[in-house]
Order: sequence, then structure tokens, then C-alpha cells
Amino acid sequence: MPIPDEPLSSPFDDVVGTEWLDDDPDHARVRLRVRDDLKQPVGLLHGGVISTLIESICSRATAIAVYEQGLAAMGQSIHVSFLRPVTEGTVEVEARARHRGRTTWVWEAEARDSKERLAALGQMIVVVRPIPGRDS
Amino acid sequence: MPIPDEPLSSPFDDVVGTEWLDDDPDHARVRLRVRDDLKQPVGLLHGGVISTLIESICSRATAIAVYEQGLAAMGQSIHVSFLRPVTEGTVEVEARARHRGRTTWVWEAEARDSKERLAALGQMIVVVRPIPGRDS
Amino acid sequence: MPIPDEPLSSPFDDVVGTEWLDDDPDHARVRLRVRDDLKQPVGLLHGGVISTLIESICSRATAIAVYEQGLAAMGQSIHVSFLRPVTEGTVEVEARARHRGRTTWVWEAEARDSKERLAALGQMIVVVRPIPGRDS
Amino acid sequence: MPIPDEPLSSPFDDVVGTEWLDDDPDHARVRLRVRDDLKQPVGLLHGGVISTLIESICSRATAIAVYEQGLAAMGQSIHVSFLRPVTEGTVEVEARARHRGRTTWVWEAEARDSKERLAALGQMIVVVRPIPGRDS
Repeated sequence: MPIPDEPLSSPFDDVVGTEWLDDDPDHARVRLRVRDDLKQPVGLLHGGVISTLIESICSRATAIAVYEQGLAAMGQSIHVSFLRPVTEGTVEVEARARHRGRTTWVWEAEARDSKERLAALGQMIVVVRPIPGRDS
Repeated sequence: MPIPDEPLSSPFDDVVGTEWLDDDPDHARVRLRVRDDLKQPVGLLHGGVISTLIESICSRATAIAVYEQGLAAMGQSIHVSFLRPVTEGTVEVEARARHRGRTTWVWEAEARDSKERLAALGQMIVVVRPIPGRDS
Repeated sequence: MPIPDEPLSSPFDDVVGTEWLDDDPDHARVRLRVRDDLKQPVGLLHGGVISTLIESICSRATAIAVYEQGLAAMGQSIHVSFLRPVTEGTVEVEARARHRGRTTWVWEAEARDSKERLAALGQMIVVVRPIPGRDS
Repeated sequence: MPIPDEPLSSPFDDVVGTEWLDDDPDHARVRLRVRDDLKQPVGLLHGGVISTLIESICSRATAIAVYEQGLAAMGQSIHVSFLRPVTEGTVEVEARARHRGRTTWVWEAEARDSKERLAALGQMIVVVRPIPGRDS
């Protein structure tokens, strides 16, 4: 896996608490410990947190994979179905790049709770473009 | 607009900084001031923040609207297309309930930057269900 | 697999040419032979044909699976990403019910061409409801 | 509105019965007369027909709009929520290009029945690319 020269620290993921487990596009993974400040009004993990995790891992794993070719990655669209509320423990998102094209990568992702139960399903399109002003 | 007895404070929205402007299902609105800690690695507002804003306002406005009938609202799916990156200023999301059914509400939402430029388009399905144990 | 009393013939699938291969929610499958009258202006299989196949198999397999409990199935939303154009041969869609809830089923589907290459990815939500006027 | 030199006849739209009403990206429109052979098993207009109409008008209106710049259009993803079943009369889809970028157009579309009731909401991403081998 190529290592970018510049760091890939993501401030919003620091706020959310995303733990980066794996950047391999075949089984990229992040995990999150559920905290009260990540919840919506009735005590469930906010869906926006799950969308954030999916977007973070799909974007990051694409970015790392295409970086050595002088390309950058940017989210184009995300679709998430919420299947089961999460209230405690951890959430883990595993994502797989199903299409790795010249201009777009398409990912499928699933979120599971601490008991391995499916909590959400996502699909994300990430656009790949030359990094402006960089020799590639 | 019916006012729930219990508060609708949303911890994750407090973290993100969501400002609640309007809960009317015809033109529900939230606003956010862009901060550095809401960004992804290359300095853009994280897409997950925009997804969060869309989900928050659609869920909240549905919840308030159906509360007096003894119903609760829960996000079922969200779809967001990102059109233009946001780096500074504010983001405002305006959402409209296009379908207000007995069991589902369907919303369209758009996010604009400080210059009124379209930054993202969302569509969200919110499920409406009886609140367990509550007379309705 | 329960067999409905009434036939499940689908007129639009007859027009399109859907071949029903498998109704098992773990690996439901349909196939289609690409014909010129299924194409869009520049000679590619029309994306609407692929959306139709995904919707048909997810709805049908849900309907068959819940029929004996006196329930009917209806498509609520569909999301499809098109990855590779199809111009000839066959298309096969395989779908898997990732969530089989009391009120909704959520499916993932993939379409492949004759050479097993991924042509499209779909996600579909199917609503499950009591059949009006039927004892269950 | 630029008129392509080559015809834009779409075989699958001929099968479906798409009537082209307007190609203006601000209010592109198609209409369809509901026929029995466009239905699914329980007598409703097949959702795939609605997805087809949305995809057809968004793709076509993009293609016409970018043709003079030597560009071609291709559907990348479609998202449709079905709000109300259609059983008879006509369906009309109106679509609006909300984003007209250098590489992608993003559309919102709504389908209405003969009584002007909302039947479905769509969002579609259309990719715009140079036409291979054509001077532009």
C-alpha cells in the first residue's frame, strides 16, 4: 500500500473518533466506539455518524490507492440504508471497492454493531482526478 | 407547529454545530458555520457533515410534525450527491417533505454555501411509526 | 419456497425478456438476452433495463418469500450505479436480501455481462405490508 | 437548443412508449401512456418503467445540451423513490439539471400521474465525456 508523503489526518474523523483499521480496497475497515455525544435526540447513534464513517473509509482508501499515480479522490455521491439502530458498543464499517475505474471508484460498505448485526448498507461513488500542479 | 413535551436536543448536532432555523416541512432549514475541525484531510468540509445536516433536519422536522399523532420518526435511507466543495463560511440546508404518507415521509434537500451556490443535493426517506407505549 | 396460488406473471418483464432463474433471497437471479430493441440511442443496453431487472427480482423474491404470511411486497426505492456498458450477449442480475425486516426488506444486487464483468450495482428497499382483505 | 446531426432515436423508449415533450435542462419532460404490458404482477405500472423514463430524459437532455461541445453523456447512477402507485392514465416526468459541471451533470426528476399527484422522485448523475474520434 503506497504511503502518501503528506499526512492524511482528518479533523472531522478525529472529532467523531474514527479508528482506521485497514485501507486495503478489498476490505477497508474503520471502527468507532459509540459515545453519548454521537447520538440523535432519542438515544440512537446518529445516522450522520454512519454516513461519515462510510464516506471517510471509501474516500481515504481510494486516495491512498491512487496517490502514487498522481491522482486525488473526492466523494461524489453516497447512498445509505439504515437497517438497525445502534445504541452502544462499537460500530465497524467494512468497505470494498467494486469498481476501480480511471475516473470513478464505486464502493459497497456495510456497518455492523458489536454483535456483528448488520446496521447499515452503503454505496459510494468516489471521483478520481489528477492532483493539480503535481507531476504524475 | 406542535411542540413536543420532551426536548429534542441532539447531542451529535451540538458537536457538529447545527443551528435549527425552521422546522416547517415545506421549507425546513438548518445552518452550520464551517470550522476546521469539520474538515476532511485536504481542507474541504467533510461530506459526512453535509449528510448529517440533511439527516438531522429531515428527521427532526418529520418528528415534530407527527408527534401529536403519537408517532415517532426514524431515518431509513439517505442519498446525497456532492456538487461543489465547501471550504469556508456557512452551509445552509433547506429541505422539503415531498411525500407525507402514513408510514413514510420522503424529503428533498439542498445544501448551499455562503454565496448561495448549490453544494449538495439530498433525498431522504424517513419512516413514521407509533411510539411504543404511548396513547395516541 | 412457498408457491403463491395466483400466478406471478409480470407483463413488463415479458416485454423486456426477463428470465427467472432463482427466487431464493440468498441468491435470487434473473437473466436477459441483450436485443437491439432494449438499447438506448448509441447502442448500449438502456440503463432502465438494468434497473427493471433489479427491481423485478428483488420485488418478486420478496413477494414469494412473504406470501404465506399474508403479506405483499412493493418497491420503495432503488439505487443503481452503472459501471460498465453492455452491448451484447446476456446480462445476469444476482440479488441478495441483506435485511428481512417485519416492514422492509433491503437488497443488494449486481449485474454482470456474459464475461462475468460487473456492469452495475444496485440497492433496493422493498416494503412489506399485509394484503388487504386476506386472512393471514 | 442545439440539434444533433445524427438522430437520437432510442429503441427501448420506442418499446416503452416514451413521448419526448421538452429537452430544455430547466424543465425537460417526457410522458407515457400507461398500458397493461407496462405493468408488474399486481397491476401497477412497473417501477422499472419510471426509472427508464427518468434515465431517458436526463441522459437525452444532457446529450443534446453538450453535443455541440463535442461531448457525449452517459448515465452513472440513478436513485428513485416510489411514492404512489400508478395504474392508469398517463405518467409525466419533469427533470431539471441542478448541476451542469464539466464532467458531470446532476438531475432531479419527479413523476406525476394524470391527476398531477407525485408518483416518484428521482436523482440522476450523468457523466459527460469527449466523444472519441470527434473534432470538438
